[in-house]
Amino acid sequence: DRTAAHVERAVSDWITLNVGGKHFTTSRATLLGKEPLSMLARMFADDKNVYLMNPSAVDSTGAYLIDRSPEYFEPILNYLRHGNVILDKHMNPRGVLEEAVFYGIDSMIPQLNKLIEESHNSSGSNQALT
Amino acid sequence: DRTAAHVERAVSDWITLNVGGKHFTTSRATLLGKEPLSMLARMFADDKNVYLMNPSAVDSTGAYLIDRSPEYFEPILNYLRHGNVILDKHMNPRGVLEEAVFYGIDSMIPQLNKLIEESHNSSGSNQALT
Amino acid sequence: DRTAAHVERAVSDWITLNVGGKHFTTSRATLLGKEPLSMLARMFADDKNVYLMNPSAVDSTGAYLIDRSPEYFEPILNYLRHGNVILDKHMNPRGVLEEAVFYGIDSMIPQLNKLIEESHNSSGSNQALT
Amino acid sequence: DRTAAHVERAVSDWITLNVGGKHFTTSRATLLGKEPLSMLARMFADDKNVYLMNPSAVDSTGAYLIDRSPEYFEPILNYLRHGNVILDKHMNPRGVLEEAVFYGIDSMIPQLNKLIEESHNSSGSNQALT
Amino acid sequence: DRTAAHVERAVSDWITLNVGGKHFTTSRATLLGKEPLSMLARMFADDKNVYLMNPSAVDSTGAYLIDRSPEYFEPILNYLRHGNVILDKHMNPRGVLEEAVFYGIDSMIPQLNKLIEESHNSSGSNQALT
Repeated sequence: DRTAAHVERAVSDWITLNVGGKHFTTSRATLLGKEPLSMLARMFADDKNVYLMNPSAVDSTGAYLIDRSPEYFEPILNYLRHGNVILDKHMNPRGVLEEAVFYGIDSMIPQLNKLIEESHNSSGSNQALT
Repeated sequence: DRTAAHVERAVSDWITLNVGGKHFTTSRATLLGKEPLSMLARMFADDKNVYLMNPSAVDSTGAYLIDRSPEYFEPILNYLRHGNVILDKHMNPRGVLEEAVFYGIDSMIPQLNKLIEESHNSSGSNQALT
Repeated sequence: DRTAAHVERAVSDWITLNVGGKHFTTSRATLLGKEPLSMLARMFADDKNVYLMNPSAVDSTGAYLIDRSPEYFEPILNYLRHGNVILDKHMNPRGVLEEAVFYGIDSMIPQLNKLIEESHNSSGSNQALT
Repeated sequence: DRTAAHVERAVSDWITLNVGGKHFTTSRATLLGKEPLSMLARMFADDKNVYLMNPSAVDSTGAYLIDRSPEYFEPILNYLRHGNVILDKHMNPRGVLEEAVFYGIDSMIPQLNKLIEESHNSSGSNQALT
Repeated sequence: DRTAAHVERAVSDWITLNVGGKHFTTSRATLLGKEPLSMLARMFADDKNVYLMNPSAVDSTGAYLIDRSPEYFEPILNYLRHGNVILDKHMNPRGVLEEAVFYGIDSMIPQLNKLIEESHNSSGSNQALT
């Protein structure tokens, strides 16, 4: 039955990630579309001809476990959805940079570095140290 | 039994959305009332005479899955409830603009553009880049 | 058994609201005490001699569904608990005003209008538009 | 069996509070240790020789129901854990003061009053009114 | 079967902590890697030859109970993941310091003290008192 197969495939395209204890629901298309060669994309690629990373473990609800910050993952996922780097004012751009480097979303990095530079020029207090 | 039918219809008018992993509970009237021709309204329209978008997949609790930012959806949904664009001070108006464009809530866009312009004029630091 | 009846009544005085997808637990006394003629109080009044609003629908956990902002409901509920209007610094007082008007908590409105006026006098950026 | 009894007692020393709809997990030792005569401590005291307040009702998960603000309870509980009054920058100290008075954590009050005074001296906008 | 054993071990390396009522999911490698002699690392060490702290109690979902602040634990856990101290602008660094001292993550302490000093030099208002 072609309809059933179609529905089944559509459902399997929804993916829930458990990032550090918080659930994010997205689609395989979002994870793969913007940066197909990133580590995050390769974790969920379904092309059997390319090298696949080991699939992550899942929690009791079936969400894929990722041992990273949930807060700083949010602007990463939004970037994969619409292509813009958007951070709220209280958010430390260095936290997002750590995640972009970890997930291999390289096209975010120059923009995050520019945000970090700008925030050093303004108040200077409560900035992160390395 | 007219009473039972009435109750049943009333219950079905409550809709839960799973936006990027977070649940929002609202009513069909809220989603349809303010901008009936928006993409969001058409997803949940029950008028059988107009073109309907494919209904979204649902999660295990029956909530409609939408692959977008939960944080920036909140002022969108509040706008549909009462008609005013209200953002907290830490929130980046560009994040809300992305969602207004995606959901097709066109009447929010001029107000969001004005908020974006104003926030560029003030501090300038930690603003989003394109 | 008077003790059992007493316990049963006490338990039924706890009420959980599902406001826009977020659960708030409070007591009937809190909802009714401060502004007994407000729309919110009348939704949960148990005096059979006065006009009662239609009880709201409940979700699968038994929480009463209200199609409004959860974030801006928090200072409303705190006000009903202790009688003071207290907002965090990032919170837009216009968001709280919309909810106070909706729920009919009239005694909050002058204080919220004063907070709105003060916030216009200070920074001016990122304020809501009408 | 002494070991089993020991484990059972240890487990019962963990207490979950449902404060306004949000769950907080802590230990009886934390609730009793810092201010043993506070209302909060007396709610959970197990000394049968002193006057006990009526135990609170519990929700379906066994958490003790308290009809107060969850947000402003957090610094109260942290204070009971380590003895320091620590508030984030966006948090209104008047909200925490309301809770300290309610729970009877008297040793926090002078420090909270000092924070309130300092925040009036700085920006002045968006402060709470009485 | 070596494969099954391998999978079983990998799954058991995921650990969920219930810190003050909030769940954090991480791996044993993250908890042990950066500061193997810290109190936090020793709670989850599986080397049978060294002294082990008493394992913590678990909640009904199997998460290890820790009676501390969830909010201020987040930058601690991120530090264990990537080695950098990163705080959002609204967060009080003194709250994080309390947790670093509690968990024994000594290498964070000089950086947190520097952040505390810097935040005293800037605005001064709403800082914590001791």
